Amino acid sequence: MNIAGEIEPCLLLQRVQEVRADTLALAAPLSDEDCGAQSMADASPVKWHLAHTTWFFETFVLAAHEHRFEPFDARYRHLFNSYYDAVGSRHPRPQRGLLTRPSLADVRAYREHVDARLGALLSARSHLPPPALDLIELGLQHEQQHQELIVTDVLHLLSHNTLAPAYRTDLAVGDSAELRPLRWREFEGGGAQIGHAGAGFAFDNETPRHRVWLAPYELADRLVTNAEFEAFVAAGGYREPRWWLAEGWDWVQREGITHPLYWRDEHREFTLAGAVPRAAARPVCHLSYYEADAYARWAGARLPTEAEWEHAAAQQSCEGQLRDFDVLRPRAAPGSDEQFFGDAWEWTSSSYAAYPGFAPAAGAVGEYNGKFMVNQYVLRGGSCATPADHIRASYRNFFPAGARWQFSGLRLARSR
Amino acid sequence: MNIAGEIEPCLLLQRVQEVRADTLALAAPLSDEDCGAQSMADASPVKWHLAHTTWFFETFVLAAHEHRFEPFDARYRHLFNSYYDAVGSRHPRPQRGLLTRPSLADVRAYREHVDARLGALLSARSHLPPPALDLIELGLQHEQQHQELIVTDVLHLLSHNTLAPAYRTDLAVGDSAELRPLRWREFEGGGAQIGHAGAGFAFDNETPRHRVWLAPYELADRLVTNAEFEAFVAAGGYREPRWWLAEGWDWVQREGITHPLYWRDEHREFTLAGAVPRAAARPVCHLSYYEADAYARWAGARLPTEAEWEHAAAQQSCEGQLRDFDVLRPRAAPGSDEQFFGDAWEWTSSSYAAYPGFAPAAGAVGEYNGKFMVNQYVLRGGSCATPADHIRASYRNFFPAGARWQFSGLRLARSR
Amino acid sequence: MNIAGEIEPCLLLQRVQEVRADTLALAAPLSDEDCGAQSMADASPVKWHLAHTTWFFETFVLAAHEHRFEPFDARYRHLFNSYYDAVGSRHPRPQRGLLTRPSLADVRAYREHVDARLGALLSARSHLPPPALDLIELGLQHEQQHQELIVTDVLHLLSHNTLAPAYRTDLAVGDSAELRPLRWREFEGGGAQIGHAGAGFAFDNETPRHRVWLAPYELADRLVTNAEFEAFVAAGGYREPRWWLAEGWDWVQREGITHPLYWRDEHREFTLAGAVPRAAARPVCHLSYYEADAYARWAGARLPTEAEWEHAAAQQSCEGQLRDFDVLRPRAAPGSDEQFFGDAWEWTSSSYAAYPGFAPAAGAVGEYNGKFMVNQYVLRGGSCATPADHIRASYRNFFPAGARWQFSGLRLARSR
Amino acid sequence: MNIAGEIEPCLLLQRVQEVRADTLALAAPLSDEDCGAQSMADASPVKWHLAHTTWFFETFVLAAHEHRFEPFDARYRHLFNSYYDAVGSRHPRPQRGLLTRPSLADVRAYREHVDARLGALLSARSHLPPPALDLIELGLQHEQQHQELIVTDVLHLLSHNTLAPAYRTDLAVGDSAELRPLRWREFEGGGAQIGHAGAGFAFDNETPRHRVWLAPYELADRLVTNAEFEAFVAAGGYREPRWWLAEGWDWVQREGITHPLYWRDEHREFTLAGAVPRAAARPVCHLSYYEADAYARWAGARLPTEAEWEHAAAQQSCEGQLRDFDVLRPRAAPGSDEQFFGDAWEWTSSSYAAYPGFAPAAGAVGEYNGKFMVNQYVLRGGSCATPADHIRASYRNFFPAGARWQFSGLRLARSR
Repeated sequence: MNIAGEIEPCLLLQRVQEVRADTLALAAPLSDEDCGAQSMADASPVKWHLAHTTWFFETFVLAAHEHRFEPFDARYRHLFNSYYDAVGSRHPRPQRGLLTRPSLADVRAYREHVDARLGALLSARSHLPPPALDLIELGLQHEQQHQELIVTDVLHLLSHNTLAPAYRTDLAVGDSAELRPLRWREFEGGGAQIGHAGAGFAFDNETPRHRVWLAPYELADRLVTNAEFEAFVAAGGYREPRWWLAEGWDWVQREGITHPLYWRDEHREFTLAGAVPRAAARPVCHLSYYEADAYARWAGARLPTEAEWEHAAAQQSCEGQLRDFDVLRPRAAPGSDEQFFGDAWEWTSSSYAAYPGFAPAAGAVGEYNGKFMVNQYVLRGGSCATPADHIRASYRNFFPAGARWQFSGLRLARSR
Repeated sequence: MNIAGEIEPCLLLQRVQEVRADTLALAAPLSDEDCGAQSMADASPVKWHLAHTTWFFETFVLAAHEHRFEPFDARYRHLFNSYYDAVGSRHPRPQRGLLTRPSLADVRAYREHVDARLGALLSARSHLPPPALDLIELGLQHEQQHQELIVTDVLHLLSHNTLAPAYRTDLAVGDSAELRPLRWREFEGGGAQIGHAGAGFAFDNETPRHRVWLAPYELADRLVTNAEFEAFVAAGGYREPRWWLAEGWDWVQREGITHPLYWRDEHREFTLAGAVPRAAARPVCHLSYYEADAYARWAGARLPTEAEWEHAAAQQSCEGQLRDFDVLRPRAAPGSDEQFFGDAWEWTSSSYAAYPGFAPAAGAVGEYNGKFMVNQYVLRGGSCATPADHIRASYRNFFPAGARWQFSGLRLARSR
Repeated sequence: MNIAGEIEPCLLLQRVQEVRADTLALAAPLSDEDCGAQSMADASPVKWHLAHTTWFFETFVLAAHEHRFEPFDARYRHLFNSYYDAVGSRHPRPQRGLLTRPSLADVRAYREHVDARLGALLSARSHLPPPALDLIELGLQHEQQHQELIVTDVLHLLSHNTLAPAYRTDLAVGDSAELRPLRWREFEGGGAQIGHAGAGFAFDNETPRHRVWLAPYELADRLVTNAEFEAFVAAGGYREPRWWLAEGWDWVQREGITHPLYWRDEHREFTLAGAVPRAAARPVCHLSYYEADAYARWAGARLPTEAEWEHAAAQQSCEGQLRDFDVLRPRAAPGSDEQFFGDAWEWTSSSYAAYPGFAPAAGAVGEYNGKFMVNQYVLRGGSCATPADHIRASYRNFFPAGARWQFSGLRLARSR
Repeated sequence: MNIAGEIEPCLLLQRVQEVRADTLALAAPLSDEDCGAQSMADASPVKWHLAHTTWFFETFVLAAHEHRFEPFDARYRHLFNSYYDAVGSRHPRPQRGLLTRPSLADVRAYREHVDARLGALLSARSHLPPPALDLIELGLQHEQQHQELIVTDVLHLLSHNTLAPAYRTDLAVGDSAELRPLRWREFEGGGAQIGHAGAGFAFDNETPRHRVWLAPYELADRLVTNAEFEAFVAAGGYREPRWWLAEGWDWVQREGITHPLYWRDEHREFTLAGAVPRAAARPVCHLSYYEADAYARWAGARLPTEAEWEHAAAQQSCEGQLRDFDVLRPRAAPGSDEQFFGDAWEWTSSSYAAYPGFAPAAGAVGEYNGKFMVNQYVLRGGSCATPADHIRASYRNFFPAGARWQFSGLRLARSR
């Protein structure tokens, strides 16, 4: 997270304004009621996201660097703490949807208040020390992660409503791309470097950059599509234990899983535009690690490791079909786009772990990443809901093996 | 539920308007967010109460008696069905808080729409058959029951918020009554009649009126108070298994129960006015059956049976401190009021069961009461949140032994 | 439980020997392994039954009345306490099957040791005070209840084994009785007395004898049979919510219940003789309260109250097909036997509650019955596994509504 | 698992006899009851281990290679299948303790029967094909793994008994070793090879041998001791979230964990010899991954990766304090023994995953390892209960992060 001195305060202020405005833009189509509901313990109400991202700035930046810090409301320290033990107690996570007070209007006022104070801090002649600038940048990166969660949590919430309401009725749903045959790309392997280095922001979990050794491997040149996954379903993939990890098979049986999370009937899927026809050429998504792994085995392949993925992705230009507020849905692979970036997160076979020499950041923000390094799997590449500046080869997303409410798909790999 | 011919349609229409207005009045102090949240599976969002009570009229009255019935929205039949298997499928109860659509405004429009059609039906020259009038009356009684649930569900919801928000900040909280010493009233027992008979509405579970035989007994002349219950707590009542039913003791240990539901610290309790001082002379409430039974045993007494209670209450005038929209909290027993009616529901030792010769109503509304007659206990007398015309000696309320979010207290009894 | 002075110590000693021998006879066909296993938290290993019944005598009789009491093993006080809080701590109930030590041989030695000391106490010239004799009698009654549990717990254990092993291969399984048409017997109702009075042992929960008022009613002259229950199953009874209590319907769906507990395929049932053909004329048993209630409703009838049952049963001679160590299975109703006694316990619609004026016994044995008086339903009449001297009109058995591993069936009732 | 042609059938027969005899020797001190009980779903009764290891030979060797195969009892195919979906259905794992039939004597007869047929197969002039020999060797390795489970499952079972019974009263418990100060050994890192290659048996999950890149690191020269872990406990380690992975902290709070699994009071621990004094210099064991990780963080270190561990261990001679039937308890590090082998399994930070190019064995035995490669962590080095020929640098044991009933401890590592 060391970016000190790389950015001018005035530029940072502009970025603060842009990122904070994006968050509000995502919430704009939603009613107060939509913003208050919580569909499961792993998801949060939009209002809570709006407040917590603000709390992050207030707690880690303003409290440390304002001359005479006074909290907007001292009780928010408890209410909007997510998981920072060093900060103190917190409201029980599964009960975030019960916080009908403060109201959405109160939370918007909280945002404006903190924005103003952040602006004052950044505009002041007083020189903010580099760690303060780092924390502001971290707060922005943090808020952008929550932007993606706002999108996926809202999708999850609306999916529980038999009215199948749309988040926005004006989202682009058309799709004319043809299914491109899957081609394999070869990689020689050998010594390689992964992890972040050099200029630009990165999370602590992307560092240190380090050497790995890769055996020769191949990667598919695009993501697995709905049509391909339908073939797996049609072949009885969900009823045949031999394709599944033992724990995955238990999960399938216990939960009665028969298809990806948001598939409806034979031909439709639930999206932010409501229930729409499932497009054959679009990447399949909302898969658990178990499903991704089972599909790969059925297809005679496997998931890539995160090192294999990063080694290949680092050779691509970091473009692709990134977040577009008017789409928010993975798109079919057009032309020569290999879909490494955007569209859908790609499950890797790598358990989320510390890189050699990893050290978490000092202070409470050290709880950001390190303490989650167990029983989670790494996803790479970003999705249609990921902000563009979170799209990079070294970025590590992570979720438990059973999580499906993110835009999570897969790319096939195989050993040579 | 036979009241056919007892009421003029035009008077019934006036009553429809009054009852429906009361429901909206109860929701008025709440935000859209407040109205959408659900704090546990047993409680419902206020919006859902507003819709379901409307659904009841639409489904059981309009659909059967309108000339050309068209539903307001055909999907509501599923969304707002509570538990009527004969009506068909329903939205999962624990997920009512996820229905952010239809919005509160939509539900208000639904209410207005159905009110207008009910008005038309009652105003028309066409003579409604007596069963239709009965069903309208049942719908009103049903809605009044939900009015009480709105109050208790909102209290439960707000209690989960560490901000301790008030439902209304202008509720009367003062209390100057002195604690009156408890006196025992004697009853001779012998043959007695309980159950509803004669004019006026009653639920099917209050009938048929029938003969019982009572051994001589005594009842306290008021409810158990906070001060008395504090003595039980101070004496270690929650740590001593001998006062408890075995199942109650398991409950205390499993849930870590140490005091009534809404007690806070040593001197305060959470109410619809927020956290306020606990008044010694007010009735203790928000007790489970287990707690009421344990207290009674500790006090050298027992809970009354419902027959004992009704036999005594039938000799009282049906007055008392009934629902007052500006109070909504049990009050200390003033003067000679024996608190049989209003203030707090009184747990009886009687399991909820059919009276001899009981027959549920015909049709889907027959699911109203009968199918719940197992593993629930009868409460009598009404509470500070009960509409006045639900206050009568024969009225039977019922809840599982562990339920505490109602205004449930107790009156001591003993055998002579 | 007041029987003091009614029995001579030397006769009591003989009864001690007989009852204790019966218990061992029931365990005789079982291996050490069979005796150690526990199939669910509600059931206990046979070895535990053998030890706990012995513990009862040691703890409540020997410790109080021996001149210089020394426990056989002080640690058994904890290990074999069932639920007596006044006695102190106890081994967790669901882990009784993990007590591989003491061994079955150790427990047999414990039995012999305590038997010898009980014999010495009863043979001594010293006059035992009446309360001691009462406690010995209570211990015998207690042990006889555990005899029935040994039978039902073993059946439950063996039912989990796909080898379908028989408890005994020489049990009588033949059955030639024809199905007798069900006839209704009429009862006038009016004032009646129920509860135990007069000579002979009774549990505290059967007292005091008291007056009740009964509306006119009818009872079937025999139990419901397998053939009759098969008709309910064939008619889709388990798939139709209207026959079920709401809580019962939840239970059916959650547990996937489609037939009585031990029914196998279309024509067989699991019994202590292994899997055998289901006899049409035998009483259906191993029903939950929910199933008994649903069947009754489907049949246009209802369950009797315990007062109705007792009033009718008290007019019968207390004979019938009682426990026979070589049968242990309900038999078809022969000739004029109305099956009030033996064969299968009959669910009543009465929740288990205290009789008017009920007072539990003093001391720790006061925990015997009273503390279970919530959320359980009364069964009457005894079963094929009930010792003959537990068969009487006033005897009250009780189980939660979902319990099915007892020999529990039903008799139809209806109001006139 | 390719060992074909490496071993003579007659030598293999001798090994069959030795391994099978070792299993019986481990069961010898136990009663029939001890052998039948199951203390949790993750553990199995000893009888089940005895039968399942026999089932493995019958199902995978005899059924495939006997001329006219007839199963000993066709029903055992279902009863003693552990998790092989390709073999068919199986008895529910949590109910293995309910299989009181077949008896222990039956299972011993089953063992003898299968042993005789294996002997006949190996003695016959007919040449067994190499795959058959491989499967026999796999069966022996499999049985040896179950020998360790017998030891740990028995310890777990006996630990639930407040009598604290000893598995054997004649086990060596004395311990005079002094605590040796911990020294760090340095490793240069760079390219390295891990995984099995060359002669000798190995499981499929140890292959293929492959290249990895290691950053410079250090390892402690012995395991963490009881005394060292006591300092962590005394310092409030179990009450301080900052040492814990988030999931570990949830586990500590949910389960109320305050010390290693078998620690009793301040100075004792439960062992196969009963409750004995805890020796300061012995390795701490029966830790979860969470506890091992938290301790390491508290100590300013970390867990090693499995590659780091194997790279270091491969430089050691494969000696140490291996399984001794008269000890079965980790011993303090004597002299220069660095405890890489034996004593206690060492948690690594590596999630259990496939090596590059891994392919599971063909057929049903392919379910042996691969399908468990998710949400488990690798342990290395073997324990005091591990057969000597399972002790090698490449051996990979694996358990979920919360498992504690194995002899699992830790060695500290740090980056240079």
